[in-house]
Amino acid sequence: MDGRLGVHYALNLAAGEDAAGKAALIGLEQTVELPRSLLTAELAERFAGRVEAVQQTGPRRARVVLSYSLDAIGADLPQCLNLLFGNISLKPGIRVVDLEWPAALVTALGGPGHGIAGLRRLTGVSGRALLCTALKPMGLSATELASCCEAFARGGIDIIKDDHGLADQPAAPFAERLARCQEAVTRANAATGRHSQYFPNVTAPAALLAQRLAAAREAGCLGVLISPWLVGLDTLRLIRDQYGLAILAHPALTGSLFGRGAGMAPQLVLGDLFRLAGADAVIYPNAGGRFDFSAATCARINDHLRRPLGTLRPSLPAPAGGMDVARAGQWVRRYGPDTLLLIGGSLYAQGDLQRGAAALRAVVEGLGS
Amino acid sequence: MDGRLGVHYALNLAAGEDAAGKAALIGLEQTVELPRSLLTAELAERFAGRVEAVQQTGPRRARVVLSYSLDAIGADLPQCLNLLFGNISLKPGIRVVDLEWPAALVTALGGPGHGIAGLRRLTGVSGRALLCTALKPMGLSATELASCCEAFARGGIDIIKDDHGLADQPAAPFAERLARCQEAVTRANAATGRHSQYFPNVTAPAALLAQRLAAAREAGCLGVLISPWLVGLDTLRLIRDQYGLAILAHPALTGSLFGRGAGMAPQLVLGDLFRLAGADAVIYPNAGGRFDFSAATCARINDHLRRPLGTLRPSLPAPAGGMDVARAGQWVRRYGPDTLLLIGGSLYAQGDLQRGAAALRAVVEGLGS
Repeated sequence: MDGRLGVHYALNLAAGEDAAGKAALIGLEQTVELPRSLLTAELAERFAGRVEAVQQTGPRRARVVLSYSLDAIGADLPQCLNLLFGNISLKPGIRVVDLEWPAALVTALGGPGHGIAGLRRLTGVSGRALLCTALKPMGLSATELASCCEAFARGGIDIIKDDHGLADQPAAPFAERLARCQEAVTRANAATGRHSQYFPNVTAPAALLAQRLAAAREAGCLGVLISPWLVGLDTLRLIRDQYGLAILAHPALTGSLFGRGAGMAPQLVLGDLFRLAGADAVIYPNAGGRFDFSAATCARINDHLRRPLGTLRPSLPAPAGGMDVARAGQWVRRYGPDTLLLIGGSLYAQGDLQRGAAALRAVVEGLGS
Repeated sequence: MDGRLGVHYALNLAAGEDAAGKAALIGLEQTVELPRSLLTAELAERFAGRVEAVQQTGPRRARVVLSYSLDAIGADLPQCLNLLFGNISLKPGIRVVDLEWPAALVTALGGPGHGIAGLRRLTGVSGRALLCTALKPMGLSATELASCCEAFARGGIDIIKDDHGLADQPAAPFAERLARCQEAVTRANAATGRHSQYFPNVTAPAALLAQRLAAAREAGCLGVLISPWLVGLDTLRLIRDQYGLAILAHPALTGSLFGRGAGMAPQLVLGDLFRLAGADAVIYPNAGGRFDFSAATCARINDHLRRPLGTLRPSLPAPAGGMDVARAGQWVRRYGPDTLLLIGGSLYAQGDLQRGAAALRAVVEGLGS
């Protein structure tokens, strides 16, 4: 594809719709937005998506591959997202199932600032899976959340993040929560000699984002939690480039992309796009939890986060969503040590948070050596 | 609901799943993210979504209504979006079909800075539908796009926007396109005595957004085009509050929310949410065009944009997406004068852009008096 962006689509065809025709329309819709008849040959050739392959896979199904010139994108992540699934999100029967990233675009987007090795450095963890939990529930005061944070850190959880629904509500306003939780984790680290980290949720209104990020950095946090789909995916690049904080990305609101007949495959959004934008670790709903991802989908997300992609650092997969303490060892064995196990409710169900955390840590340490 | 946010869901139930149980789980998932058994009575009562109504509508279908305390949101649009469809986007069979907005939240979010009356003032149009078109295709130079812009303005198009795929590509970089197109529309207005407006596309990487907005304002633009789902919905509020520019919002990437069995109803996203966030006009794919919205859906979007909602200004519906010049009159008669007809390709197909625009204008003027 000589430097072009390759996009593989699975199409469901309406009666009378042919795959090659639908493919060509996608190539126009996502770029020039005019019928072919209104374009000069030069514009059509240089800017419209080019149909590279068409394969009928059933009476009403096809796989097609289009390629796009980077001249249609620039080095711009919102426009890349628009080209991938902007207008066609509004059309039925189109699912993006694979992407081939050209080196120039990969380099321009840049990927994780820290990656797996960086997260290991800042938590001081080597040779085993990392542990993550969430401060919750919404409604607790900043002081109460901080005491959970301290217990988890003393028990040995590596990354303690805000629940992603903790924003700036009156019960635990952002500034107060940040101060109390960062103090708590610092106190615990002083006692344990370890390097647990508190990642505050900086998902915020556009006018307040910079202020929250600056506050997190000033408080001494080394990383943050953010939900890219709530605030714009490119926000990750801004955090990476302007604040240098490690980024744990949450999948809130992405799920509507993952319907069966349309949308984008989860490993392309939570894998490729989140990683390219700069997520050092990516939370996704693990198989067997309270969400709907299959084991195969989870394996593909892990692969897309970790596998070679240009010069990009690998990102740490963070399976979550109803993970059970009792099955932690099983997941680590399946997913390998380059995994951030995110266990929330099941730890709270232990009652004694510090003891529950310590027991969980013993499990992953036992597997890690 | 005494000041709470009301959310109506249509549920598809799995075998053995009961509607009341699923409703209660949604109320926990979207707020406290812990099982009820791990919550105190006070936290459950104050922060979890409260099931207000359950109605079985078929063997495997139900409508349920939940209400949420604003203490779970604050006055924060990203967290509001998260509460509406963050985690449950990752679960099957949940569709948000109606919303009841409490006055306090409506006031806090604020809605359009200009609204329909404001857009009429800045274009000098009263008593008829407004006309909009898009500069395209991608690949033309800034000078070429500007000459289209001038022709459209001379022909009488009220708002001439960048195609939403025009970002900062090498063929027509943002700064140059902005300068040339704004000069063109100013020149045309000087000749015609009218008030056509050029709205540049400011959908941009997070680190560049402020710069593009400032440039648009300095160039003399009174409004901008933006795709909220590509850059974060709350960006609209920032534009409204910090720049005062009128906002024309594009639906790129929202479509994956509009699947049949899951997601959110289009009038809640393109109607309520876009309007609450500050869109003065909202583009949506009109029925009968190259997208998939029904006439009923379009009527509902129009209604949600225009109807009374607290103290909010009404927003201008902008039906688009393959609208035909020949049927413009029909759409204006159906949708009424408070409509922004967005016609792109069909105007380009006329060949002479100024003459095509003038003919279209004559149609809507003929209907408006």
